[in-house]
Amino acid sequence: MSSTYGESLKLSIFGQSHGNAIGMTLDGIPAGLAVDTEVLQEFLNRRAPGQNDWSTPRKEEDRPEFLSGLLDGYTCGAPIAAMIRNTNTRSGDYANLKNAPRPGHADYTAQIKYGGYQDAAGGGHFSGRLTAPLCIAGGLCKQWLETMGIRIGAHLKSVAGIEDRSFDPMKPELDEVFADFPVLDQNAGAAMRKAVADARRELDSVGGIIECAITGLPVGLGEPMFGGMESRIAQIVYGIPAVKGLEFGAGFGAAAMRGSENNDDFSVAEGKTATLTNHAGGILGGITNGMPLIFRTAIKPTPSIAKQQQTVTDGNTVALEIKGRHDPCIAPRAVPVVEAAAAIAVFDAILSQDTSYRRINTYGFE
Amino acid sequence: MSSTYGESLKLSIFGQSHGNAIGMTLDGIPAGLAVDTEVLQEFLNRRAPGQNDWSTPRKEEDRPEFLSGLLDGYTCGAPIAAMIRNTNTRSGDYANLKNAPRPGHADYTAQIKYGGYQDAAGGGHFSGRLTAPLCIAGGLCKQWLETMGIRIGAHLKSVAGIEDRSFDPMKPELDEVFADFPVLDQNAGAAMRKAVADARRELDSVGGIIECAITGLPVGLGEPMFGGMESRIAQIVYGIPAVKGLEFGAGFGAAAMRGSENNDDFSVAEGKTATLTNHAGGILGGITNGMPLIFRTAIKPTPSIAKQQQTVTDGNTVALEIKGRHDPCIAPRAVPVVEAAAAIAVFDAILSQDTSYRRINTYGFE
Amino acid sequence: MSSTYGESLKLSIFGQSHGNAIGMTLDGIPAGLAVDTEVLQEFLNRRAPGQNDWSTPRKEEDRPEFLSGLLDGYTCGAPIAAMIRNTNTRSGDYANLKNAPRPGHADYTAQIKYGGYQDAAGGGHFSGRLTAPLCIAGGLCKQWLETMGIRIGAHLKSVAGIEDRSFDPMKPELDEVFADFPVLDQNAGAAMRKAVADARRELDSVGGIIECAITGLPVGLGEPMFGGMESRIAQIVYGIPAVKGLEFGAGFGAAAMRGSENNDDFSVAEGKTATLTNHAGGILGGITNGMPLIFRTAIKPTPSIAKQQQTVTDGNTVALEIKGRHDPCIAPRAVPVVEAAAAIAVFDAILSQDTSYRRINTYGFE
Amino acid sequence: MSSTYGESLKLSIFGQSHGNAIGMTLDGIPAGLAVDTEVLQEFLNRRAPGQNDWSTPRKEEDRPEFLSGLLDGYTCGAPIAAMIRNTNTRSGDYANLKNAPRPGHADYTAQIKYGGYQDAAGGGHFSGRLTAPLCIAGGLCKQWLETMGIRIGAHLKSVAGIEDRSFDPMKPELDEVFADFPVLDQNAGAAMRKAVADARRELDSVGGIIECAITGLPVGLGEPMFGGMESRIAQIVYGIPAVKGLEFGAGFGAAAMRGSENNDDFSVAEGKTATLTNHAGGILGGITNGMPLIFRTAIKPTPSIAKQQQTVTDGNTVALEIKGRHDPCIAPRAVPVVEAAAAIAVFDAILSQDTSYRRINTYGFE
Repeated sequence: MSSTYGESLKLSIFGQSHGNAIGMTLDGIPAGLAVDTEVLQEFLNRRAPGQNDWSTPRKEEDRPEFLSGLLDGYTCGAPIAAMIRNTNTRSGDYANLKNAPRPGHADYTAQIKYGGYQDAAGGGHFSGRLTAPLCIAGGLCKQWLETMGIRIGAHLKSVAGIEDRSFDPMKPELDEVFADFPVLDQNAGAAMRKAVADARRELDSVGGIIECAITGLPVGLGEPMFGGMESRIAQIVYGIPAVKGLEFGAGFGAAAMRGSENNDDFSVAEGKTATLTNHAGGILGGITNGMPLIFRTAIKPTPSIAKQQQTVTDGNTVALEIKGRHDPCIAPRAVPVVEAAAAIAVFDAILSQDTSYRRINTYGFE
Repeated sequence: MSSTYGESLKLSIFGQSHGNAIGMTLDGIPAGLAVDTEVLQEFLNRRAPGQNDWSTPRKEEDRPEFLSGLLDGYTCGAPIAAMIRNTNTRSGDYANLKNAPRPGHADYTAQIKYGGYQDAAGGGHFSGRLTAPLCIAGGLCKQWLETMGIRIGAHLKSVAGIEDRSFDPMKPELDEVFADFPVLDQNAGAAMRKAVADARRELDSVGGIIECAITGLPVGLGEPMFGGMESRIAQIVYGIPAVKGLEFGAGFGAAAMRGSENNDDFSVAEGKTATLTNHAGGILGGITNGMPLIFRTAIKPTPSIAKQQQTVTDGNTVALEIKGRHDPCIAPRAVPVVEAAAAIAVFDAILSQDTSYRRINTYGFE
Repeated sequence: MSSTYGESLKLSIFGQSHGNAIGMTLDGIPAGLAVDTEVLQEFLNRRAPGQNDWSTPRKEEDRPEFLSGLLDGYTCGAPIAAMIRNTNTRSGDYANLKNAPRPGHADYTAQIKYGGYQDAAGGGHFSGRLTAPLCIAGGLCKQWLETMGIRIGAHLKSVAGIEDRSFDPMKPELDEVFADFPVLDQNAGAAMRKAVADARRELDSVGGIIECAITGLPVGLGEPMFGGMESRIAQIVYGIPAVKGLEFGAGFGAAAMRGSENNDDFSVAEGKTATLTNHAGGILGGITNGMPLIFRTAIKPTPSIAKQQQTVTDGNTVALEIKGRHDPCIAPRAVPVVEAAAAIAVFDAILSQDTSYRRINTYGFE
Repeated sequence: MSSTYGESLKLSIFGQSHGNAIGMTLDGIPAGLAVDTEVLQEFLNRRAPGQNDWSTPRKEEDRPEFLSGLLDGYTCGAPIAAMIRNTNTRSGDYANLKNAPRPGHADYTAQIKYGGYQDAAGGGHFSGRLTAPLCIAGGLCKQWLETMGIRIGAHLKSVAGIEDRSFDPMKPELDEVFADFPVLDQNAGAAMRKAVADARRELDSVGGIIECAITGLPVGLGEPMFGGMESRIAQIVYGIPAVKGLEFGAGFGAAAMRGSENNDDFSVAEGKTATLTNHAGGILGGITNGMPLIFRTAIKPTPSIAKQQQTVTDGNTVALEIKGRHDPCIAPRAVPVVEAAAAIAVFDAILSQDTSYRRINTYGFE
């Protein structure tokens, strides 16, 4: 397992924060799917650092080179491989990470697991930088899903406890998410940005919650039990660093509801069966029911903070001050990453549909 | 994928609620592990219905017959297969489910996905009854983990909004969970039972939150990214019917904390590195850090309620009244199921550890 | 891995020769496929022992009980599980196998691998009896393939060095294989049966070669490299006990040919592209080319012979005489097993075809 | 599946013959394994073209660049990625392959499977050039196996029907294979080279058989049924282009033996159980028995020949003359590829051993 994902598609992510390159291979993709590299680059730019006041000033152009799998703008059936060179590496800031594991990071667990052989610089393979290749794969899947009428969008449901309004679960307003700072309510966005700036000034960091919606899904996607849409999405979303919680539809809120309140009654709308509410978040028994698929994921505050902390070096408890500058809030840059993860999970679920499934042919694949 | 799980172990669950039998095969288990079928039966009894005032009166003795894989009380290296006969089936209560899908159930999604060929009786393969074979597999894994000093316990963190106190994340009180109703605080338990009884009387149902703790884990379990402990646990926990949320450690609460608050400082305790707090829930970078692994999962209210609801039959919106009697709250019976899922995920992660991992030898396997 | 197979379908085989039952689970099968249990039983009877002069007289009715996955004669989308009770077990003949491993059997390797915990009776999980559940899965796949116009047949290419004539690789004579003894040339068959009888009388055994042909395959089945049809068929065929060789098309013979001889020129036949010869055995680059898929597999002589052999007991070399009666030649009963394995591999390859593949819709699945 | 392999390790191969680069990712490898890039380069040179009279003059330095997974000469636990730039590409020789599929190649099957979107130049992803990344992965595994005392070697058992002597199955002479042309008998080698030169002069090609031996294996490696060593090796060896046959131990020859002849009697040698002969090729029940593992694989004659052949263009049968120069016999260069495939399969089997397996600790991993 480890850095691979997928049932029908096989995604393998490689690289360390300060190694030669980061990248991915994506096997099992049908031939003949168009790839718009401009659109992909715009998607990757949403994740890229150094572009605004709430992210790390490390500048790294996340421009992937495709090594294989594409021909004349289309997938050719061979595995797709792409990489991004690491150009801004080995600053020396990380020289002593092995001896002073940072709280909230994988430094300590990697040290023990790999017996000291891990690449500790910048968190190595555990760095948030590894979400860039995830966004390459996810950005591609997102394009292909859009040709089938399936759209994915996310926004910051909260940052530092400041709430954006929620998506309408019956009709998520994907087109109303602002481009510069991904919220639905610009006043909430302004308050969030102020909270992030405050945290930075106080040498601290804040977390947030990302809400993601997927529209245009057919009825019947996903498999029973461990192959359900929740299981598929959860496996990949929890692969994003800093994710500590995930809920679908009414989620934890459903636990306090009564059945009569939480159940979504069926009704006929425009000649088709639909539910009157969407507490299920578009999933019943692990399988899509045709309503928007909604989930929220909790992003912890950036563990790298300038404030003094405590760690253990050579068996002694010592004070730690982390050098370098980091995102005071990772949540805004994680928004496209969550979309990417969702796109990969959904596209894999579609590829895994058995061919007896009548609706497969409406996906525009043939 | 669908009803199979695991990287090194291969769990395959089969059966429909009203078919001949339900059961499981479990491949990839080392030979020579002792199996105590009495202890297993006690574990299964915690999930079994019809034993108290808060569950369905359907009486079904969940006594598994082992078809293969055991010899003289030990695993023999061959795949383990076990089944439970369905004896209390085909009541006729379900005759019209295909034409009147129950809100909150998989009736509708299965109908569309399987084109009408699904076994609709009692929810078929989507029935909560399928958690019985999950508990067979999980009950076995739990026994084997205990011989390595790894313990798993869970309690009802809330039911119908009524809160039990939380586990101490530094030292979860596994031995203080009450046997008859799984809470830490008996007053909370009494209030929960009253809320369940109220809901039943009002032809309704309630949900709950289950908190699970795993102690005795070594440092270093789990793999990077999609093979992390959160991903592994999430994939199987979301395979349990009615689960709509999952969070680790501080979870959604972490999203509102500052980094200085959420980070767990390292310190030396009894000569070993440990954290002073446990907001991470025992996992950093997907890998166990030696602290207790803590997660909470949201269980929605039982969708089968006697109250009138609305569904669609032959293209028309109609009223629905569900016959039969059901658990007014599934959460208490789901407590051992969550433990089982966790046990399977952890045992699989242990089997998947590469042999370079120094600590593997302390697991007592050889 | 071990006793599981498949990419899109998930086959898991369980049981020991003298345990409670043998069986299989088969997950990932589309709903709505018809199952004719009579046809399946006839297929299983071809493998069953005790029916003629060349097989073991152990009588065991291989009549599977379906535990799940079928409803009213159709697959219902849930995993299919079936078992066969072992009724004729624990004769005591095998009491000392642990201390006297039989040459040519897995007794010794299982003893070391499982540290003495293995079920040694009758070879346990390594018994040829485990090919019965393989035939359940394969018999089902064979039925479903036939509805798509894909046929699978095999015959004894040789027994004890006596040769049957080969299939015409351009047009394999599937309908000319005799039912009572699976050869194309009845004279060859008579000579083979005599050779088997001779071996039995001389307390010995003989081997054979099985040739299998698959017709009606579309162009384009299989994936590059390790997902090619040869790799897929090889993985499952080598899971049949006693198989020691496998070749496709001209196979080992191709190694002595020149390219101009071995290459199959393309031509137009009945308006379609076809090859003029079929040395490739219907596979180019791992992918079917529309010609009959042909392979041959070598079955070693039954290792259980009554003749005195030599083994090691408690560190000493000792003489061994195997009690009980065994098939003097396993090859005839292995013919349907090879067909079953091929059917499973082909059906899995079809299910794994990505949905962009235009021809998928001609398979009659929708 | 397709271009990925492995149970515990995850190998993913990418690239097309004339694309930007070819390469591989290898996930699941333990940290702390030493990598000698010089030794790896020597291994890759054995496969590289343009170095002698029997191979294609296309000169391409197969010098991999490692993108990730290594640090200071050791594996660091992160996935290993490596690539080789394609420098000698797009000659125009292949412009018309889509319209004139070469006999014996994947041109036709790829054309149909990928609907014309495939990268046809040089065979694209189906090119023998893709065995270079296989050799990167296999060369690494081979190094690591050698530190455990496991050695892998292969030679040309035959070329153009000319036979080398066989390995002694009890004690394969790995050190006696000549470096410049991989045979045991130099006279046979000279005759083979002459046959290859003859074929080239006559615008034709020849095939061969490669025999591979693995020594130093412990008893107990491999799993039952589809996880047996034969299945594991077969899946990857059949992923090598041009392989059409594979046999273990006595292989097809066993089919003509009697059981008393083919069975390997057990005996005590140097205090350990061993067999007196090795017709089983070191495998019983899919599991290694401590004797040398021996297999032979048939390589078909190079399909690219200068002699005139016949193909189909636009529905018409036309004559075809293949431009460019190709290996008149691919078998010599395939020798290290077969070793690489075997090394990957064995290393994966070792990583997949459950930790209850006592001997795991003697592997030198900790």
